[in-house]
Amino acid sequence: MNPLKREAHHPGAIDVLNKGIGLLEQPIAPNEIARRNWNLLREDLALPAAVLYEDALHHNLEWMRQFMAAYGVRLAPHGKTTMAPRLFDLQLRAGAWGITLATAHQTQVAYVHGVRRVLMANQLIGKQNMAIVAALLRDPEFEFYCLVDSAEQISQLGSYSSQSGNRLNVLLEVGVEGGRAGVRTREQVQLILDALGKWSHAIALCGVEVYEGVLDDEAAIRAFLLHAVDVTKEIAAKKLFQRSPILLSGAGSAWYDVVAEVFSSRNFECPVEVVLRPGCYLTHDVGAYRVAQDRILKSNPVARHMGAGLKTALHIWAYVQSVPEPNKAIVGLGRRDAAFDSGLPVPALHFRPRSIPCRAAPEAAPAHWTVTRLMDQHAYLQIAANDDIRPGDMMAFDIAHPCLTFDKWRVLALVNGAYDVVDLIQTFF
Amino acid sequence: MNPLKREAHHPGAIDVLNKGIGLLEQPIAPNEIARRNWNLLREDLALPAAVLYEDALHHNLEWMRQFMAAYGVRLAPHGKTTMAPRLFDLQLRAGAWGITLATAHQTQVAYVHGVRRVLMANQLIGKQNMAIVAALLRDPEFEFYCLVDSAEQISQLGSYSSQSGNRLNVLLEVGVEGGRAGVRTREQVQLILDALGKWSHAIALCGVEVYEGVLDDEAAIRAFLLHAVDVTKEIAAKKLFQRSPILLSGAGSAWYDVVAEVFSSRNFECPVEVVLRPGCYLTHDVGAYRVAQDRILKSNPVARHMGAGLKTALHIWAYVQSVPEPNKAIVGLGRRDAAFDSGLPVPALHFRPRSIPCRAAPEAAPAHWTVTRLMDQHAYLQIAANDDIRPGDMMAFDIAHPCLTFDKWRVLALVNGAYDVVDLIQTFF
Repeated sequence: MNPLKREAHHPGAIDVLNKGIGLLEQPIAPNEIARRNWNLLREDLALPAAVLYEDALHHNLEWMRQFMAAYGVRLAPHGKTTMAPRLFDLQLRAGAWGITLATAHQTQVAYVHGVRRVLMANQLIGKQNMAIVAALLRDPEFEFYCLVDSAEQISQLGSYSSQSGNRLNVLLEVGVEGGRAGVRTREQVQLILDALGKWSHAIALCGVEVYEGVLDDEAAIRAFLLHAVDVTKEIAAKKLFQRSPILLSGAGSAWYDVVAEVFSSRNFECPVEVVLRPGCYLTHDVGAYRVAQDRILKSNPVARHMGAGLKTALHIWAYVQSVPEPNKAIVGLGRRDAAFDSGLPVPALHFRPRSIPCRAAPEAAPAHWTVTRLMDQHAYLQIAANDDIRPGDMMAFDIAHPCLTFDKWRVLALVNGAYDVVDLIQTFF
Repeated sequence: MNPLKREAHHPGAIDVLNKGIGLLEQPIAPNEIARRNWNLLREDLALPAAVLYEDALHHNLEWMRQFMAAYGVRLAPHGKTTMAPRLFDLQLRAGAWGITLATAHQTQVAYVHGVRRVLMANQLIGKQNMAIVAALLRDPEFEFYCLVDSAEQISQLGSYSSQSGNRLNVLLEVGVEGGRAGVRTREQVQLILDALGKWSHAIALCGVEVYEGVLDDEAAIRAFLLHAVDVTKEIAAKKLFQRSPILLSGAGSAWYDVVAEVFSSRNFECPVEVVLRPGCYLTHDVGAYRVAQDRILKSNPVARHMGAGLKTALHIWAYVQSVPEPNKAIVGLGRRDAAFDSGLPVPALHFRPRSIPCRAAPEAAPAHWTVTRLMDQHAYLQIAANDDIRPGDMMAFDIAHPCLTFDKWRVLALVNGAYDVVDLIQTFF
């Protein structure tokens, strides 16, 4: 029996020591939370708290399912965004082909929680990382792909795989000058193919992978994708792929429409399975991905006909802590709680809870309220003199960059339309 | 019995799902790790991993103990930096008066792990946050202070404390125009004193608190500290403090020398206990705190006579993953692993492990190796053509800003001088 299959991990208990939930006398299972009748607006969560909106999550799952189906491509959402196995499960139930991950550790987390097909969109490097994957591959039901982009790396991987007795599935990473990993030239491709030839008993070449997100210009991205298509065709012509259909994978969260269009419209003369990897669609944001979505809704014919686009499914809620100057409030929300690398959090909702004179429902935060600075545990909020804002008020913030927000929370509260806490979503970073 | 005192939390088991440790068949207690004979250079950790150096940690603990003793002031190191109760314990054993924390959640984590004196350098806001603290205060051995800076907040706090039957210790936060929370004017001070008068059965004013780190000019900081001294004297003259000695607290990790000098040299005409709150001294960094330490070693007479200053006690280790261009390597270390808000990670050490032709010990990374970009899971490393660097090489990186590095790791490995893993340090963010 694979020791990693132990029941203890399905599901883990939520500890009393997790931030963003509240006072618990003892650890509870996530599915016990609904019975507690916690409600966000009744202050049953200790803020700051990360809150996921059930309705928007399901809308986004369905939106992306339809989009991928329209192009006839597979979805392997990038799980590094959330590292929340409960959300992986929702994605798989919504038709995802598998889960994309970035590291051996992340792969292990997914496996332990039931994911059985992983595209690790990275090179597998280092003794323990290889050992982690080798342990998972003892389960014949586990399907795993990782990337190769150098003869040196293939030699290390082949040597380890030979010893462990697993044949490892790999994709050739095709990169771009100025970009991240991946081969730049046809000479490099040939070196890889030569190296793979030496290790064919231990490594199976199954396809080609790109990450176009290192570029930010559509024309350059299209050229790069067509180059990857050409490389795929050349290797296919040499009959060097060990899988049919050949896997061809690309797409981060900003350009998946272009990748879907380019990859699905090529004629490969052999079966090709296109696998796209956006991750941030699940919660969306108000930063780079809203900009990307606006472009997609304007320019992509499939998205244009799908009606409402992706919805914001993640807020950070926090208390106003001080109003020390007429134009400034201090909010208990900091760089420990929300991403700040792609834009500061944006005030979305304002609510005065029942313990002080009551408002019935959150109102939209005034447009002139702006976060001007984020410290480790505090936000500076610019307000206008005489704005109605007090210590103890609750505020919800939109965030930019879900990946670097999820990793600040071990537990997120899932709420329904009435702000009842219906589930707790754990992360494993 | 206080339900939060349960044995289960002393210490928690390290889960197989934590990144940065390696393949574990089942959860283990942190103190069982030494018996495994793991060694970092033998690749017994799955990189990326956060590594603490035992010798440097103990040096820094002793350095700060001596510094504080020379000024006759108390140390309540800011625990938000590490949120690692094992490190809180080391700090308390090295003479710390208590632990400073930023939130009710952090206070709960510290309490559950044995900390019995907490200065929460923040306003306590919100029903559940008050409930968490009220539960801890059922233990008469638990000493707790938090901040007040508005009548509205005092009214909420007083109302809750009256109901829960605890008398809450508070410090008046004195702030500065353009800064964070805290009263700016003497009129605001008077409003606070009036509000405290109404709630004297529920709230005890024990002292004054400042955070000078919102300023970055020494002259302005000195003026601000002297203002806080004056406010303290004025309230003392009115005999409105409920504690003797009066608590006077300040100091982040950059200006603790100036705060120690200013606060310890004043004549208060009544007993005053000065409590300073630096947190980053424990691991130090190569960013803002190295700059601060250089200034301190030059300008502070006590530090000048103490010999070696603070030492770097924290590295992130990662694998070189690809060398796709002659001048670029890609390293498996990203914004998920290291702080980037105060400077990118800096290459410190380079090592080629035994699985490939061996080097005996890590060498200093060449000075021209530079991190030029950090993505979620990757670093772009600028190198020179023909540098001896390969996929599978290990590198250690210095970091800037320990606070935003610790919070990316649930477990850090403590190593001795031979890179043996002697302990695992858990965090609770």
